[in-house]
Amino acid sequence: MNPYQKIFESARKAKVLDSIKGLLHWDQETYMPLRGIDLRAEETALMAHLVHREMTSKKFGRALSQLVDLETGECFDDSLSFEKRAALREWRRDYLHEVRLPPSFVKLFAKTTALAQQVWQRAKEKSDFKLFAPHLEKIVSLCRQKADYLSFNEHPYDALLDLYEPEMTTHQITSLFGSLHIHLTALLKKISGCGQPPSEFLHQEYEPKRQLEVGKMLLKAMGLESDSSRIDLSAHPFCLSLSPHDLRLTTRIHPENLSSNLFSVLHEGGHALYEKNLPAEHFGSPLCEGVSLGVHESQSRFWEVFIGHSHPFWEHCFPLLQREFPENLSAVSLDDFFKAINTVAPSCIRIEADEVTYCQHILLRFEMEKALLEGNLKVRDIPEVWNEKMRAYLGISPSTDDRGCLQDIHWSLGALGYFPTYALGNLYAAQLFQAFETAFPHWKEEVKRGALGFISSWLQDKVHKWGRQYPPARLIQQASGQPLSTEPFLSYLKKKYSSLYHLHRS
Amino acid sequence: MNPYQKIFESARKAKVLDSIKGLLHWDQETYMPLRGIDLRAEETALMAHLVHREMTSKKFGRALSQLVDLETGECFDDSLSFEKRAALREWRRDYLHEVRLPPSFVKLFAKTTALAQQVWQRAKEKSDFKLFAPHLEKIVSLCRQKADYLSFNEHPYDALLDLYEPEMTTHQITSLFGSLHIHLTALLKKISGCGQPPSEFLHQEYEPKRQLEVGKMLLKAMGLESDSSRIDLSAHPFCLSLSPHDLRLTTRIHPENLSSNLFSVLHEGGHALYEKNLPAEHFGSPLCEGVSLGVHESQSRFWEVFIGHSHPFWEHCFPLLQREFPENLSAVSLDDFFKAINTVAPSCIRIEADEVTYCQHILLRFEMEKALLEGNLKVRDIPEVWNEKMRAYLGISPSTDDRGCLQDIHWSLGALGYFPTYALGNLYAAQLFQAFETAFPHWKEEVKRGALGFISSWLQDKVHKWGRQYPPARLIQQASGQPLSTEPFLSYLKKKYSSLYHLHRS
Repeated sequence: MNPYQKIFESARKAKVLDSIKGLLHWDQETYMPLRGIDLRAEETALMAHLVHREMTSKKFGRALSQLVDLETGECFDDSLSFEKRAALREWRRDYLHEVRLPPSFVKLFAKTTALAQQVWQRAKEKSDFKLFAPHLEKIVSLCRQKADYLSFNEHPYDALLDLYEPEMTTHQITSLFGSLHIHLTALLKKISGCGQPPSEFLHQEYEPKRQLEVGKMLLKAMGLESDSSRIDLSAHPFCLSLSPHDLRLTTRIHPENLSSNLFSVLHEGGHALYEKNLPAEHFGSPLCEGVSLGVHESQSRFWEVFIGHSHPFWEHCFPLLQREFPENLSAVSLDDFFKAINTVAPSCIRIEADEVTYCQHILLRFEMEKALLEGNLKVRDIPEVWNEKMRAYLGISPSTDDRGCLQDIHWSLGALGYFPTYALGNLYAAQLFQAFETAFPHWKEEVKRGALGFISSWLQDKVHKWGRQYPPARLIQQASGQPLSTEPFLSYLKKKYSSLYHLHRS
Repeated sequence: MNPYQKIFESARKAKVLDSIKGLLHWDQETYMPLRGIDLRAEETALMAHLVHREMTSKKFGRALSQLVDLETGECFDDSLSFEKRAALREWRRDYLHEVRLPPSFVKLFAKTTALAQQVWQRAKEKSDFKLFAPHLEKIVSLCRQKADYLSFNEHPYDALLDLYEPEMTTHQITSLFGSLHIHLTALLKKISGCGQPPSEFLHQEYEPKRQLEVGKMLLKAMGLESDSSRIDLSAHPFCLSLSPHDLRLTTRIHPENLSSNLFSVLHEGGHALYEKNLPAEHFGSPLCEGVSLGVHESQSRFWEVFIGHSHPFWEHCFPLLQREFPENLSAVSLDDFFKAINTVAPSCIRIEADEVTYCQHILLRFEMEKALLEGNLKVRDIPEVWNEKMRAYLGISPSTDDRGCLQDIHWSLGALGYFPTYALGNLYAAQLFQAFETAFPHWKEEVKRGALGFISSWLQDKVHKWGRQYPPARLIQQASGQPLSTEPFLSYLKKKYSSLYHLHRS
């Protein structure tokens, strides 16, 4: 075996182990009996350890350093294809991340977070932050330690952010979010002065089983077939890819909230299509992996929001929805439905937030995570600070912590640094959508007819099929024709909501 | 760490890995999308390899040989408790099994069988034995190789049998099955001359979801709570224990066959109770493992047949069943129901066979497996030979292979040598039931009232709590007060069915 093959063999093995770890997580969130948790924590820690050991093995490190200078990243073998050199660049990136974390730390981190997840779920059910706080304290301290192990130049947050959004910095995020905050606050203020469309019909009783059936219908329309994907229920919707041929989506169904499941499904469906369209022949290599969480999120938001909240999409789908829920929707017009799902109003739950307020939820989390890492915010003060910030940014605050600082699973997973990628996803998606509209000026006609395949094909061609061949910034530049900025997102929002709310242009 | 602790640490790690392998299997049989199979085969092979590596590690072997003579089994340390010496005896047993199989063989075996399972399922659906045959050929050849690796004195079948039923021999099975065959054939002949009770009502339409609810109710009555167990659907019912706190049962539901699900649930529930009642504090040691598949099967048959087909059980449960299915059962009397579920009639499907014909299904499989291993039966001839034997033993033969040689999953799992344990389970169960009746002469009164807890407690005390502390033959002798024989089983059957079918005593 040549060094490249050796690297691939190790990496593929790590990937197989990682997919098993994925299944453990999927099972924990969907079907595992409650008392299975202790063993599950042990299983998860063990698999994390094995993945880590494989990716930091001497065999892997030696083969890698035969082809790449681990210090500088320079590739020694010019005869390798561009693809292979890109894979090596990313393997080096991953290797340096992994090798800096001691095995005992990786194990402790996995075990701590597996246990914390279960406690978080109980704490959320009881809306009892105190139950979760000691676990979160451990997690914050482990994250700070992680940043130190990984090393950083300016801010410990950089080290964590880079795990989810390669090459992104805290500085850049701060600047982007600053601009978003100003413009979104202004837009929200204008909208707040307007009357709201009726939307009570979204909050009548919708039979859960039929809601799930509708979800399955939407996924099928997006091109996700049941021979390679499935959807189940979990406390927090997610999409987990074991391989491009085995995608596990989840949703949650509120009997009195139609939108929650509808848009969770479109959202997770967008993630799933990215994973489905990765080049499966490279499974085990970075060429068959999503490039960053931000870009991943752009795919889910593209479907959830840019397509899934558009008028033409519902021109096709609303009659189908009416047929499923005639008792709720037969008297509702398409236009009223369209306006209702696009209602802008500050709310407590991030994943149910509208497009205009969504990024404010992220800003809040970003600021708090930074402060936690810096030691400027104590875990015990989280509920108070959360509620203060909610009042400052959105003018409301949750009455209970299950609708506040306990709503998201991420901290229990130890995923500090993850949230900003959600806002980035919106920015990327807006840029891609602009390019998409240029490429398909008549896209609305197609979507009205129920045709969605061309969207998936375009995204596959522009984003999915590349895997990690280019860094995220470069990929987005190539796909959208412009570097990352807030402009396309903000102008899309202004245009859409000026029309919906009859705002005067400013 | 002392050697005992080292052994336990390795064994516990292997157990955790094995439980993950279990989850992979459970998922494959319940929820995995079809196209997930290729990766799943790889995952399963990898986990099998890791379990094997752990159990054959130098660390484990060295620590073990510090305490036990690997040749003779003699324990060097007399100060160890009886429990610990029993655990060491069993660890040595497992170690010698594992260490004789080369890692490459273990991997190949796991991968071959994981793929074969999926093909078997398709072949069964299409009733197309040819599809499955090439996979089964590989498996038979691997099993022959396995017997050679494990080594044996008299017959290669001994080596495989010993994996499932420690210390049992092909010779002993042949003699037990010979006696069973004679007496069961005679009993069946007598019954065949009698009229059959009406049983059409068992084959009306029974709504699948309500059938599943009834299953859950029965499991709860048996003492299996949802915080540590669950039941799902699969092609072939099974019970998989990840730990005593996480038990995964499956059933299958035929919309027009009430018995199938009812008795699958009681059967798998019996297995689950054994696993649940093992001493969880010893998880990772043989003290927290079932002693043999035959004894395991005795637990499932105890509940499915000796309790679950008894009159007092249905005195309590039949009214509940009537309440669930009034349209089918309100006009049926308890006595008619009792007679119908105890109908004796030759049929093609093993797991739906009555008590009198069940062991003939096993005899057939035992003879064919032996012949396959000996090379006296070619895989391609299986369907023909199967059908011939069915005619000879039960006077019927299946019209299609899905109801014949393709009905069971076992061969696709590579589990040759497994089937005899089902018949042994019946014999053990009958001996235990005899002892149970002696211990609780008034058990029928309790069961009539719906009390089942005392049965589970008695079985826990006599069987479950001992784990693998004693070899199966010794455990059964202790629990039932007599060595293994066919007598209790045959006399139970003669008594029960003489009464049900009004036979003249012979």
